[in-house]
Amino acid sequence: MTGKLVVVGTGPGNPGQTTPETLAAIAAAEMFFGYGPYLDRLDLRPDQKRMASDNREEIDRARAALNAAAGGASVCVVSGGDPGVFAMAAAICEAVETGPETWRRLDIAVLPGVTAMLAVAARAGAPLGHDFCAISLSDNLKPWDVIERRLRAVADAGLVTALYNPVSKARPWQLPTAFKILREILPVTTPVIFGRAIGRPDERFAVVPLGEAEHQHADMATCVIIGSAETRVIERPGRDPLVYSPRGVGV
Amino acid sequence: MTGKLVVVGTGPGNPGQTTPETLAAIAAAEMFFGYGPYLDRLDLRPDQKRMASDNREEIDRARAALNAAAGGASVCVVSGGDPGVFAMAAAICEAVETGPETWRRLDIAVLPGVTAMLAVAARAGAPLGHDFCAISLSDNLKPWDVIERRLRAVADAGLVTALYNPVSKARPWQLPTAFKILREILPVTTPVIFGRAIGRPDERFAVVPLGEAEHQHADMATCVIIGSAETRVIERPGRDPLVYSPRGVGV
Repeated sequence: MTGKLVVVGTGPGNPGQTTPETLAAIAAAEMFFGYGPYLDRLDLRPDQKRMASDNREEIDRARAALNAAAGGASVCVVSGGDPGVFAMAAAICEAVETGPETWRRLDIAVLPGVTAMLAVAARAGAPLGHDFCAISLSDNLKPWDVIERRLRAVADAGLVTALYNPVSKARPWQLPTAFKILREILPVTTPVIFGRAIGRPDERFAVVPLGEAEHQHADMATCVIIGSAETRVIERPGRDPLVYSPRGVGV
Repeated sequence: MTGKLVVVGTGPGNPGQTTPETLAAIAAAEMFFGYGPYLDRLDLRPDQKRMASDNREEIDRARAALNAAAGGASVCVVSGGDPGVFAMAAAICEAVETGPETWRRLDIAVLPGVTAMLAVAARAGAPLGHDFCAISLSDNLKPWDVIERRLRAVADAGLVTALYNPVSKARPWQLPTAFKILREILPVTTPVIFGRAIGRPDERFAVVPLGEAEHQHADMATCVIIGSAETRVIERPGRDPLVYSPRGVGV
């Protein structure tokens, strides 16, 4: 079994946020599996093979990548952001668990990257400066009542929440519903940060109070960060405000 | 006001995990403020000024850095990991909010980095592949009963939990207490991952069931990831197991 498989993330899209370790792994691999727009971010050589697929075919893509590695290829599976956060690393593990025994003998490595919430948080200041969580709003793979219960639990416990996959054409109602639930628990002045393509030419960034937050600020590539009751906004003359969650609470 | 201040994170310690954007910011800055061991990771030139301080003096360090920037210097504030996750970005914001009005006019930028839990998760497989949270176990800045309440809330809601600052010489009892609380909610077979200095020569890494998890696996530089009831371990012949949280739940 001479093949190997590495799972990488390109970071949020700004090329300066892809780690040198990931760039070296990309340079060393022969075959690339991933969602087309993520593969488009790579600067591949003519001898490197590009196997693009649709974003919803994660398990099929994982199996194809493992199969190629089992056949002896040096394979790279590409996500945006960090490959372990709502991305391909879990799909690869799931495919290994349910696949042929031989896949357990493969050399598999996952390399960490900068996930979207960290780039959006940095753009805003330090909204994740205290306890926080990351929740996917997609109900493709979990029931909506589980999502609602989690949103209530974390807001009630005082965690800041980063929402991934906040909206899609098929489910425009989820993000407004999430805001409605959170308004029952948090002050309407709680800052909500919308960040998309941070550090890229098409960046979109906004900070609005929870009472005014609506779905129109977001699409499926947006990361939405909702503060806790402790999260603060510092207004600055001629600059975007700084949003941060204090390091201490209740002491 | 010609000075500027950039807040960076070096990543978990493997030099290949510091982003090019952060390396460029370090090369461009004149004065460096940070905890000594983090500054030691930088390859500074003789003309770059090193202002090391103790790890517990975050607000004083933030004020000194802002003061230097207000005086016209190009200042870099250095954290490990990501500067926005239990690190210096929140201290800088707090210092701006409580400091002189002129500090609000400063050019301040925060650059994202690879935070410890992402490196530990990648080393293990994909334990953060589904909804998760990050909680600091330090009660220096919040009461222990808030920490207990948060641990119960997130475990009960089915989130994977990454613990930062799990233990120190002054508080050896907190991590065992956290495990005791979590054993009341989660199966004793739930995987617990201990990761320290991942990707460095002194790396420590272990996966143990929650029923056997104790504080001796951790020190203050360890990140501890506790699975949810859904998190799975794939045993592999001759290799570390893969630990992952499935992308779907209950569907």
